[in-house]
Amino acid sequence: MNQNINVTIWNEFRHEIKNPKVQSIYPDGMHSTIAAFLRKENKLNIRTATLDEPEHGLSDEILEQTDVLLWWGHMAHAAVNDATVEKIKARVLEGMGLIILHSGHYAKIFKALMGTSCSLKWRESTDKERIWNTMPSHPITRGIGDYFEIPQEEMYGEPFGIPQPDELIFISWFTGGEVFRSGATWYRGNGRIFYFRPGHETYPTYHQSEVQRVITNAVYWARPTVCIPDDCPKSPALEPLPIDPEASERSKIGYK
Amino acid sequence: MNQNINVTIWNEFRHEIKNPKVQSIYPDGMHSTIAAFLRKENKLNIRTATLDEPEHGLSDEILEQTDVLLWWGHMAHAAVNDATVEKIKARVLEGMGLIILHSGHYAKIFKALMGTSCSLKWRESTDKERIWNTMPSHPITRGIGDYFEIPQEEMYGEPFGIPQPDELIFISWFTGGEVFRSGATWYRGNGRIFYFRPGHETYPTYHQSEVQRVITNAVYWARPTVCIPDDCPKSPALEPLPIDPEASERSKIGYK
Amino acid sequence: MNQNINVTIWNEFRHEIKNPKVQSIYPDGMHSTIAAFLRKENKLNIRTATLDEPEHGLSDEILEQTDVLLWWGHMAHAAVNDATVEKIKARVLEGMGLIILHSGHYAKIFKALMGTSCSLKWRESTDKERIWNTMPSHPITRGIGDYFEIPQEEMYGEPFGIPQPDELIFISWFTGGEVFRSGATWYRGNGRIFYFRPGHETYPTYHQSEVQRVITNAVYWARPTVCIPDDCPKSPALEPLPIDPEASERSKIGYK
Amino acid sequence: MNQNINVTIWNEFRHEIKNPKVQSIYPDGMHSTIAAFLRKENKLNIRTATLDEPEHGLSDEILEQTDVLLWWGHMAHAAVNDATVEKIKARVLEGMGLIILHSGHYAKIFKALMGTSCSLKWRESTDKERIWNTMPSHPITRGIGDYFEIPQEEMYGEPFGIPQPDELIFISWFTGGEVFRSGATWYRGNGRIFYFRPGHETYPTYHQSEVQRVITNAVYWARPTVCIPDDCPKSPALEPLPIDPEASERSKIGYK
Repeated sequence: MNQNINVTIWNEFRHEIKNPKVQSIYPDGMHSTIAAFLRKENKLNIRTATLDEPEHGLSDEILEQTDVLLWWGHMAHAAVNDATVEKIKARVLEGMGLIILHSGHYAKIFKALMGTSCSLKWRESTDKERIWNTMPSHPITRGIGDYFEIPQEEMYGEPFGIPQPDELIFISWFTGGEVFRSGATWYRGNGRIFYFRPGHETYPTYHQSEVQRVITNAVYWARPTVCIPDDCPKSPALEPLPIDPEASERSKIGYK
Repeated sequence: MNQNINVTIWNEFRHEIKNPKVQSIYPDGMHSTIAAFLRKENKLNIRTATLDEPEHGLSDEILEQTDVLLWWGHMAHAAVNDATVEKIKARVLEGMGLIILHSGHYAKIFKALMGTSCSLKWRESTDKERIWNTMPSHPITRGIGDYFEIPQEEMYGEPFGIPQPDELIFISWFTGGEVFRSGATWYRGNGRIFYFRPGHETYPTYHQSEVQRVITNAVYWARPTVCIPDDCPKSPALEPLPIDPEASERSKIGYK
Repeated sequence: MNQNINVTIWNEFRHEIKNPKVQSIYPDGMHSTIAAFLRKENKLNIRTATLDEPEHGLSDEILEQTDVLLWWGHMAHAAVNDATVEKIKARVLEGMGLIILHSGHYAKIFKALMGTSCSLKWRESTDKERIWNTMPSHPITRGIGDYFEIPQEEMYGEPFGIPQPDELIFISWFTGGEVFRSGATWYRGNGRIFYFRPGHETYPTYHQSEVQRVITNAVYWARPTVCIPDDCPKSPALEPLPIDPEASERSKIGYK
Repeated sequence: MNQNINVTIWNEFRHEIKNPKVQSIYPDGMHSTIAAFLRKENKLNIRTATLDEPEHGLSDEILEQTDVLLWWGHMAHAAVNDATVEKIKARVLEGMGLIILHSGHYAKIFKALMGTSCSLKWRESTDKERIWNTMPSHPITRGIGDYFEIPQEEMYGEPFGIPQPDELIFISWFTGGEVFRSGATWYRGNGRIFYFRPGHETYPTYHQSEVQRVITNAVYWARPTVCIPDDCPKSPALEPLPIDPEASERSKIGYK
């Protein structure tokens, strides 16, 4: 509980290079903005990684040392290596926390863990987003009141192609008339997953204090409690069994 | 509600060929035994498919016509074509029902839809399995009382690496001292998924009336209610939006 | 599946008498309007009951014959007899379906089954309500597209003091900036419960076709599958137990 | 997170007085045994309360100061004052944690929060209970391996009349052939509820280290995150509304 948490912030980091507007908002990339506010927390050790680094910045060693992984991707989901996705998935199932941001709804790793389409309605526009807190007792909403607003954001609308969340934390209202399940958690294997909707690259969303608060809370919430590698063990009986006359024969065949 | 249901029973169909004991129990394959009892239902149109048929017996046309797919696999999960798995998954998400039997817990399609390890404890042995009904109001348990017994079965034990079921229907007790979530449902996309544990190939499990009843009930329960292909639509506002001075500029860049 | 369904529509029936505006919309009471559209269904046997009838129109005999109970109440929740509430609850737990409409969120029976506050934000105003369909495969949303609108409705806003729904079916958007979980189901005992938000007495909501469609769908969905009275049985062992040297002594004491 | 937790252990404390066998195991009552092992935790402030104290030992002041309440009752559920039950329920909904032990499944407070029958099968006998851990990542199972055993316990069997748990943590195996959902959590309002099955009064269950570990873990897990009293506020619009020509008229009538 009181140990430090190793956090890796992964960012695609392409919009910031190609689009002057995004660059003006996030000159060093969204990962750097997120890293800056998380670094204010004494117990968090922050590292960043991006798509175009070797191994996407996610070597086996780094993944093994990561307690909580944040993920922002959008235009280059397909460029993420499948083997890396499998390794991240295995780490989540053995206990690592995962926080998926905004357009990461279509990231390979999110789709692989959800098992669903993860599709939604969307509109790049001038909508205001008002994010309602439906679970005020949840650690992720600590310090967030009934709602908070983002002056301008991309719209995401229902139906959202996700499994029913284990915990539905936020629901968004958009000016244009839509609603969206904006904050939701899932327990998968031994890992905790949080999806958080805000964060379109052309708006300064990650500079906003409420958004920073939610992400910070989520990092603490998502930290691992255990690390149990996958196993499918043959398991001897704990109580006496009836005698099996064919047992010796079957043991020669030897398949499970 | 009153229309016929097109059912495809998929079986790996390898144990029945290689192992004389399995052959003696299921001379025409487990799929044929399952087909025989489902064919007693007037409203069910039954078809079977096996691994070693062309396209595993699951052409696009057959998949599109299938309302409910049953799946038994074990020793040759890896031999199932990845592209076929993707197609099945897409069909489930748009509305097709899926019933996973026994060792199908490790089938590619089940793992892809669950997003988890699907691992468990196991033991080929002489355990009795007593299957307790935890949800007597569920359509899948119609006609099943408090419990039923299978005289001998392979043991599967907890922890079972699945997402929390949407409905937990059966819990098994085994002589050797284990318990297992033996019947569970998940809603994924527009499709309904039922996992049902019993059915080790060396025991005559699918000849047992209670097992047949559960599978028959599950076929009715899993039938599609809708068929909605995956979509992620750009969606115009339904209410007036504030004016965006940069809108024309952004439309030239043109990414989402 | 093919049997008729006995439906009882319960209405407080006070606003319609006291308030000329409500009377002009529902001259014979909301229950009569709801009864009229449900009577178009051949398989539904419709009965109504109101607060000021003897036993609130819910004698033991009527309750026992009811498969699905609809409930609208508002200004006189406290006037409902506690013993009647207990009987309704027992009927739901043994299998009867229950559909709670609008201000019924504060009905004794809903609070007793939820175990929570059932509180919410509210505003009598001129809001438009747009009801989004988050579960297009659910039987209750059959024939409802992505959303439908109610031109004017009372606003209900989050947080809504309910247990996490077993199925979240509708989320509402309101002009004034709020969102609400407007359609949700819970399985309690052997009964199915559906809460459906719309239906403020001063608006003609129950005359609107989409609202009628949802309620009609819900009646079919909520019909009982079983009827199992509550029981807490002493249950003999199904497998041999170790011998208990104190058993005879304890049996003399005889408490559970 | 780092503050002390005020824990109140409530015990019916009747079996220990009436039954010499129970007295020999718990000479000062089960609450004293539980208090003794919880007092080893520096951050827990422990208090006990029993049925026959004034106000059952649960004055308003004590309830308000309680962060986590433990509850053991059996033969005298009916003797618990209804008004006290309502107060406890309100405290849970505003944020207090509640841990229900063993026969507390039939306590008024548990039934009021669940909304269901809470019935089960039972047998006072010589069963061994083996408690399987289905959620090894949960804080409540910290330090508990795959399973632990209780040499002799009363049997509780499925079906258990509870709402589907938010988290299913333990499933029990009994020698006599039954299974049971032995550890489960529910989030209700802002409070966290944990039901933990073991603890029949004629066995030394609360002296066993694994049982003590689970209860200790549960106290930490159940501590409040917020304290929000119930409210159902009239809420002004956050966005402009259409003009309502009848608004002034309605405001004179003045009902919600």
